[in-house]
Amino acid sequence: MNRFCELFQVDKPIIQAGMIWCSGWELASACSNAGVLGVIGSGSMYPEVLEEHLAKMKRHCDKPFAVNLPLIYPQVDDHIALIEHFKVPIVISSAGNPAKWTSRFKDSGIKVIHVVSSRKFALKAEKAGVDAIVAEGFEAGGHNGREETTTLCLIPDVREAIQIPLIAAGGIASGKAMLAAMNLGADAVQIGSRFVASEESSAHASFKSKVIDAKEGDTKLTLKELTPVRLLNNSFSEQVIKAYKKDASIEELKELLGRGRAKRGMFHGELEEGELEIGQISSMIHEIKPAKAIIYEIISEYKRCIIEQQTLDRYIF
Amino acid sequence: MNRFCELFQVDKPIIQAGMIWCSGWELASACSNAGVLGVIGSGSMYPEVLEEHLAKMKRHCDKPFAVNLPLIYPQVDDHIALIEHFKVPIVISSAGNPAKWTSRFKDSGIKVIHVVSSRKFALKAEKAGVDAIVAEGFEAGGHNGREETTTLCLIPDVREAIQIPLIAAGGIASGKAMLAAMNLGADAVQIGSRFVASEESSAHASFKSKVIDAKEGDTKLTLKELTPVRLLNNSFSEQVIKAYKKDASIEELKELLGRGRAKRGMFHGELEEGELEIGQISSMIHEIKPAKAIIYEIISEYKRCIIEQQTLDRYIF
Repeated sequence: MNRFCELFQVDKPIIQAGMIWCSGWELASACSNAGVLGVIGSGSMYPEVLEEHLAKMKRHCDKPFAVNLPLIYPQVDDHIALIEHFKVPIVISSAGNPAKWTSRFKDSGIKVIHVVSSRKFALKAEKAGVDAIVAEGFEAGGHNGREETTTLCLIPDVREAIQIPLIAAGGIASGKAMLAAMNLGADAVQIGSRFVASEESSAHASFKSKVIDAKEGDTKLTLKELTPVRLLNNSFSEQVIKAYKKDASIEELKELLGRGRAKRGMFHGELEEGELEIGQISSMIHEIKPAKAIIYEIISEYKRCIIEQQTLDRYIF
Repeated sequence: MNRFCELFQVDKPIIQAGMIWCSGWELASACSNAGVLGVIGSGSMYPEVLEEHLAKMKRHCDKPFAVNLPLIYPQVDDHIALIEHFKVPIVISSAGNPAKWTSRFKDSGIKVIHVVSSRKFALKAEKAGVDAIVAEGFEAGGHNGREETTTLCLIPDVREAIQIPLIAAGGIASGKAMLAAMNLGADAVQIGSRFVASEESSAHASFKSKVIDAKEGDTKLTLKELTPVRLLNNSFSEQVIKAYKKDASIEELKELLGRGRAKRGMFHGELEEGELEIGQISSMIHEIKPAKAIIYEIISEYKRCIIEQQTLDRYIF
């Protein structure tokens, strides 16, 4: 049996990525109830909002789930207190040093998965005692690494470096891509963009439509030396790219970026003036569906693809 | 039977990428003789040099092979005359508009494969009547696309758009990655960086050693809005990145880049002052081997990986 499934007590080796403004209890419970690891993205939540989502999650789902916790979040202590209080079984930490918190989580019986974008940080996270690692490639939406290493190159490299379970992220929205990632050495995959365009995602309907319409080349990684982030092209992303090219100060950029922009874009559906975080693979997402149907589709394609390798002419030579 | 193999009369669906300063007749004949499509990279050759390589190729190999022809090459007419004179069976065109030359090649009985880095140009090339398309992702070495679409995202997207055979390039140096690319819909793969570090490659021994030593994060795509190129980090690439950031004029950048830099780096082994083009996947290349051994290793791993999917715990849930 797949060791990721065994360790985290889920049926299918898939994590629904914790995403700001998109993954509240509705999406997380739909995913966990469908047999994958559902995740509440706490990065866009005040402590009282996270509390509400955790309470609803507990009411609607008795399967394992996780909270995604950016370790640089200003009220991280309040979030951690809530995670402990609600006995959240798994934390997915990102954007920060896992050495600081991992042992506290482990002492509370909480399993820890840490998100990295390079071999170097994968090794550090393993050393810090995390249970598993998400390695996220350049094509992923939202915040990203400076090395710009793509999923195809990052996964075998991190696989070579670490022993613990490895979850591939970035560019995965189909069963074919899931199998590709497993071939490269992953034990599981983390899927973000595909779930933005799910019925249960809390993304604004206009943002979901924009994701469905996205074509190849419609996203861009910007702020590369500062805090790389992949955005869907719009008026706001053009302003950021322009300011960044003109060597705007960090203060000016922070001013432009402000937390409000992400909420305006993804949650309120301001498609031109808001920040729209999404991965390159949005070009291959053509339909909004319930999370359960998305999961079924991915798993079916994954299994069909394994069979096709035995029979399709294309694979035979 | 795999339609790429059928169309181009090769045993295995692999193209050895035509690479400046690295792929002359020695590498191309070793690859074609080992059952894949060997390619002479004519972009770094004067017509008299290409003539010599074609003559030697014909003497050492009676299997199908190709010439890689950048369509913006200054003496492209001389190169085409040589290609016709030597009855080269396949041309791999890149960096230019395939509409201009494809019908001439086809009239001469020459098959044409065109290299693109986006869905849009794949559609254009198919319309121009080429026989197959190489779609090359962001992680690839050397010249690259502006969309920065990674292989994992580009291949399914181009597959959805075109009907003719599709060859995946960028980030592929192993049998696992080859199978991943086939899962995504490719009919074949093009492999570059791995063959730079082959015994038969004409890359300088010092450059080959540097490729073997490369770690994750050691390459960078620069000149993104001008003419994107992925380089191995060294003093020269730092100069280019710095000049580019300072908004140097195109003339200044062209002066800095000059054709001589690539020769100095890759052919003469000037590791700091020369231009070193290589892909991200160089981080996973650990040994210089004969081309035939590299091909054997990739194919064996590809086949083993298909079997493992039926048996390994990791794939089963």
